[in-house]
Amino acid sequence: MRIGEGVEWGLHCCLTLAWLGEQPVATAKFATLFELPPAYLKKRLQALVRAGILTSTPGAGGGFLLARAPERITLMDVVSALEGPDELFRCTEIRQNGVEPSPEFALPCGVATAMRRAELAWRRELAAQTVADLVAAAPPGAAARMRQRYARLVT
Amino acid sequence: MRIGEGVEWGLHCCLTLAWLGEQPVATAKFATLFELPPAYLKKRLQALVRAGILTSTPGAGGGFLLARAPERITLMDVVSALEGPDELFRCTEIRQNGVEPSPEFALPCGVATAMRRAELAWRRELAAQTVADLVAAAPPGAAARMRQRYARLVT
Repeated sequence: MRIGEGVEWGLHCCLTLAWLGEQPVATAKFATLFELPPAYLKKRLQALVRAGILTSTPGAGGGFLLARAPERITLMDVVSALEGPDELFRCTEIRQNGVEPSPEFALPCGVATAMRRAELAWRRELAAQTVADLVAAAPPGAAARMRQRYARLVT
Repeated sequence: MRIGEGVEWGLHCCLTLAWLGEQPVATAKFATLFELPPAYLKKRLQALVRAGILTSTPGAGGGFLLARAPERITLMDVVSALEGPDELFRCTEIRQNGVEPSPEFALPCGVATAMRRAELAWRRELAAQTVADLVAAAPPGAAARMRQRYARLVT
C-alpha cells in the first residue's frame, strides 16, 4: 500500500506553478526541471487538468497553469486526482460470509467503521492543507530561485 | 493505492479470537467461517504471528490465539503487520533533481512534510483503536453468535 510517485510529482508541479505565477509551463520543462520521464509526467499533469486543478494551453508558449488560486487547491484535490477516489480500506463484508442474512448487517461493520475513522483523519488533514501552505512553508528565496532556474531553461 | 484485503481478514480474525476467548482457531476454521482461501489466509495469519499479535500452536486442537489482551492490540499493529512498515507517501526528493546541492536541502521537503502530517493523523487514529474497541462496537449478541457458529463448526 503506497501512494504513487505521481503525487510527489504533481504537488511539486503545482508548487512550481504557484511560484512562477502566470507563466505557463510545458511538460518538457517540468521534466527537465525535475529530471522526470516526460511521457509519464504528462499523464499525471493531464489527470490534474481533468480534475480542474490545472489548465492546459497547447502550442508554442503554451503549457500548464493553476486553474485556481493556490489557496483553493488542497492536497486532497491533488491526491484524489492522481490516485482516484477509492478509499484506502475496502470492506468486502466478509462478516456476512457463511451466515444467514441478518438485520444486524444493516448496521455498518465495526471493522470498516474503525478503518474509515482513521482514513477520514487522513483525508481531513489533506483537505486542510493547500498549495498556498506549501508556498508558505518553502525556504526563503525558493520561489526566486525557481524563477531563475526557469528563466535559464527558456533562454 | 489501497490497503490489501488481508487487513480486513486479519482484523476479523482478531475480533473472532477475542470473542472466542481461550479457544485456538485453525486456519481451516477461519477459512470456513469467512469463506476465504485457506492458503492466502494462512500467510496473513502467519504475518500476525511474526508481528507478535497472534500465537500459533501446531497439531490437532492447535490454532491461533491472540498473543496479548485485545486492549493491547491496536489497528495500527495489525495494519503494520500485514502491509509492512512503509509510509504511504514516499518522498523521492525530486526537489533536488537538476539543481546544485544546497544547504536548504538539509531541511525536510515541505511537500513531504505536508503529506506526512496527514499520514500521521491516519496512523494516530489507527493506533488509538484496539481490538477491544471492535469488541465493544459489535452488535449485541455478536460474540455469542460467533461462539455458536464456531461450536457447530467443530462438532
